[in-house]
Amino acid sequence: MYGDRMGFWPCREAIAEYLTAVRGVRCEAAQVIIVNGAQQGLELSARALLDPGDHVWIEEPGYPGAVQAFRGVTDNLMPVPIDDNGLDVKEGIRRCPEARAAFITPSHQFPMGMTMTTGRRMMLVDWAFRNNAWIVEDDYDSEYDFRRRPIAAVQGLDTNARVIYIGTFSKVLFPSLRIGYLVVPSDLTSAFCRVRQASDVSHSTLEQAVLAEFIREGHLAGHIRRMRMLYMERNHMLVAAIEEQLGASVKIVAQAGMHLICLLPAGIDDTIVWQEAVKAGIASWPLSICYQRKPDQGGLILGYGGVDRKQIKEGVKKLAAVVRECL
Amino acid sequence: MYGDRMGFWPCREAIAEYLTAVRGVRCEAAQVIIVNGAQQGLELSARALLDPGDHVWIEEPGYPGAVQAFRGVTDNLMPVPIDDNGLDVKEGIRRCPEARAAFITPSHQFPMGMTMTTGRRMMLVDWAFRNNAWIVEDDYDSEYDFRRRPIAAVQGLDTNARVIYIGTFSKVLFPSLRIGYLVVPSDLTSAFCRVRQASDVSHSTLEQAVLAEFIREGHLAGHIRRMRMLYMERNHMLVAAIEEQLGASVKIVAQAGMHLICLLPAGIDDTIVWQEAVKAGIASWPLSICYQRKPDQGGLILGYGGVDRKQIKEGVKKLAAVVRECL
Repeated sequence: MYGDRMGFWPCREAIAEYLTAVRGVRCEAAQVIIVNGAQQGLELSARALLDPGDHVWIEEPGYPGAVQAFRGVTDNLMPVPIDDNGLDVKEGIRRCPEARAAFITPSHQFPMGMTMTTGRRMMLVDWAFRNNAWIVEDDYDSEYDFRRRPIAAVQGLDTNARVIYIGTFSKVLFPSLRIGYLVVPSDLTSAFCRVRQASDVSHSTLEQAVLAEFIREGHLAGHIRRMRMLYMERNHMLVAAIEEQLGASVKIVAQAGMHLICLLPAGIDDTIVWQEAVKAGIASWPLSICYQRKPDQGGLILGYGGVDRKQIKEGVKKLAAVVRECL
Repeated sequence: MYGDRMGFWPCREAIAEYLTAVRGVRCEAAQVIIVNGAQQGLELSARALLDPGDHVWIEEPGYPGAVQAFRGVTDNLMPVPIDDNGLDVKEGIRRCPEARAAFITPSHQFPMGMTMTTGRRMMLVDWAFRNNAWIVEDDYDSEYDFRRRPIAAVQGLDTNARVIYIGTFSKVLFPSLRIGYLVVPSDLTSAFCRVRQASDVSHSTLEQAVLAEFIREGHLAGHIRRMRMLYMERNHMLVAAIEEQLGASVKIVAQAGMHLICLLPAGIDDTIVWQEAVKAGIASWPLSICYQRKPDQGGLILGYGGVDRKQIKEGVKKLAAVVRECL
């Protein structure tokens, strides 16, 4: 038969326990819905929560996949700036108090990497409660912040059932696994299930069964401990290589998780640098694709999760040549 | 990394070869997109091909999952009757000549089980060509027609690239596998990829790699041969049990594949019979959910793919008691 359209029960239990213990999420397995990665979580959220014309706050800069998912339902996406404390909630309220939802990446903002402060989180939760708005929390890369112990999820702070929590195993295990999850307020599970049913019925059971045991037997926690060390090393290697090869011509920001950003001097079009880098064999993202409005300063988002010391050294050498050409 | 958003190449190759050899589909691997079952294939088709307000022909009775998928984009679904030759194309043209798409299950109509004749197929292909309309062909249960050798797919008849062909391994292997596929005209692949990217990026790679070898090594063909015999036996057992227990009070139709239909006497509400059957532990579908307009005669759709001799005997005994209660 088809699997449960919310997911394989032991896998949902394992995820609920893990999130409660590690991320401070308040949930039961019955609230967990297994999806094909965070992108499907975003898309189901947009379709279950929003009507055409509804307004949504989007972090500026923010995650292009979220923009794609919300645009599938509504055109009214309101960019809200971020600063060192995360999403500027006051500015969001000023620009668009009537928004029906706010999309946030509070653990490790994508792409800029800061963590949203507890004060900002409380302010957002309060706004959502007063306005019957939804908070869509993509707990992006929370596992791999090696600067400090991660702050608990916004979902755990909220006592009004206004948060949809999204996570994925794409980063913490591997992207082609395609297992993510939603934690939704209990009274929304049937609405999410209806959308899921029309979309692709349910998730493959086999991989969920394996994942459930993998988590239960402690392998996930062990893997994260090992990978956190590895990614920290790769981060340091990449930073050192960039400083050596590119010196003061770029500024490195967003140092945590599995990527960093090389900010380019103002006036340089990062999509041109990105295209030239692709020709030289370097995969990156131009920072400007994370903006809905044109940014003052472009940059390159460089992932280091899947590259070793040799690739980092050689890659940065090629990249430096590309950047010097473009300056 | 993420997998190819169109699917794992060796799996797409294996499916293209299989469809060419077995179903008369004309395609290359580059036209094959791996999806999470037929339902996602339907949904991506609706979103890639249609705009809100577009008209779509839907077989009446037809597949409720297709209705769900197309309703996600447009409200203008036009029921087109079927007869012993399949979809009544002339009636479709009379009711709604300007439709942007027609959804069909020509191999084994869902739920009524007839095969669309070659004449009707040619007429439909001609209409689609003249009107720049799309044919969405769900090649439902083509493998398990044990009455005759299956007719080749409509996709292979069409020389104008108007057909989107949908298949799945849910029936032919098992439903919780969640691997289906689309074969799309070459000039539509990028449009489908964009929709897929926003939806859930790509399919899990591991299971595709296993499936590719399973097909290549001939296990799929062997499995189908064995299962065709098994399902035929189960079909015969179920028919015999129904005739013994229920006699002339019901009429059995749609005898092929993995389900049959017990037509109930006119005037009986099949949703009530269905609910009572659920209480007695019998899973079925009421035929009326396959209709957009209220049908003259209800029935129960009974699957026999996953039940053995003992379950069939005991199940039909319980079902007969329920039906007698409701008459």
